[in-house]
Amino acid sequence: MTEIKDTAIEPFLDQLASSAATPGGGSAAAILGGMGAALVSMVCNLTIGKKKYAEVEEDMKEILAKAEDLRHRMTAMIQDDVRAFDTVMGAYGMPKETDEEKAARGEAIQDALKMATDVPIRCCRLAREVIDLALMASEKGNVNVISDAGVGVLSAYAALRSAALNVYINAKMISDTSFVESKLNELEGLLAGAEATTEKAYDIVKGKVS
Amino acid sequence: MTEIKDTAIEPFLDQLASSAATPGGGSAAAILGGMGAALVSMVCNLTIGKKKYAEVEEDMKEILAKAEDLRHRMTAMIQDDVRAFDTVMGAYGMPKETDEEKAARGEAIQDALKMATDVPIRCCRLAREVIDLALMASEKGNVNVISDAGVGVLSAYAALRSAALNVYINAKMISDTSFVESKLNELEGLLAGAEATTEKAYDIVKGKVS
Repeated sequence: MTEIKDTAIEPFLDQLASSAATPGGGSAAAILGGMGAALVSMVCNLTIGKKKYAEVEEDMKEILAKAEDLRHRMTAMIQDDVRAFDTVMGAYGMPKETDEEKAARGEAIQDALKMATDVPIRCCRLAREVIDLALMASEKGNVNVISDAGVGVLSAYAALRSAALNVYINAKMISDTSFVESKLNELEGLLAGAEATTEKAYDIVKGKVS
Repeated sequence: MTEIKDTAIEPFLDQLASSAATPGGGSAAAILGGMGAALVSMVCNLTIGKKKYAEVEEDMKEILAKAEDLRHRMTAMIQDDVRAFDTVMGAYGMPKETDEEKAARGEAIQDALKMATDVPIRCCRLAREVIDLALMASEKGNVNVISDAGVGVLSAYAALRSAALNVYINAKMISDTSFVESKLNELEGLLAGAEATTEKAYDIVKGKVS
């Protein structure tokens, strides 16, 4: 089957809108994050090499390297959400006649739910990094393309909050409370300050374009 | 040249990240809006026909029809941003030796900037409609896929604010003050209440999944 990243945008949107269970919000979150990272890279690429921005050249090169790494990892995550969903569904579909079967199925479901929680938590981690890079790009980037840093930060922030929803859903069904607590704590840490950073970047951009 | 909607997601992200002037934030905004509309449709498609949701069946059908219309219009807008950019660049590239040439060029630039303002304003209009539909979907949709309504509203809200940045940029360079005033007034109206509606939808979804 064609991976989502190899699907053209319009047919991807058709699949997203359809009654198929995947692709859904998890893949959309990874794409949001990937677009955010790509827009940060765009601003860097259009700043590096310009005389007027020689002073920030090294900073922009560093931001670019990080943004490109994040973009590639986000792109890989588009499919991870589908795999996690399929694994959970596969576990639920296991036989449950005997006690042994029931126990094996229960364990498989729990393992799958943990995996399905780890995927969006990773998306949240990457999205938060994109938000922080987008703020730097909004401060230092070529003012002629600074709106792209603004779109980038909004997209990454939507990715973070979208992936958070997928963490909550799966965490609710996991019986290992210490696992759940540790993931929800990490999520809180990733969300903390994300809105303020996003709004700061947006305000900087809005101030420069208005 | 291949239209963006016909480009696969990974090479699209490569193009977005590159130093090419297009695709940029304008096309990204239309994709954000398209994903938002698609996710609203997904929730509708997974609610319609289910006995448990028979009571909201007609509402969901209505939301679906509107979301699909918005999705198709958003998809068409992905390329409009590139066309608008090319038109502005084309106008700036006109000869400016004689007074006649200068006058013709100035007029062409102003016309192009107006067109380049109308494209993101249209994107804002559609995105705002998606936000309102996503709220309804979050209230009435199948709770098993309600997180997709949450991702949808975040994506549409990012689309609205992203497109707004592109309105500001172009409006700044337009000399027809009554045109600018009317567009900025309309934009304020579209932004008014959008955050509150987005947060309301997000809270409903978070409450249902947590």
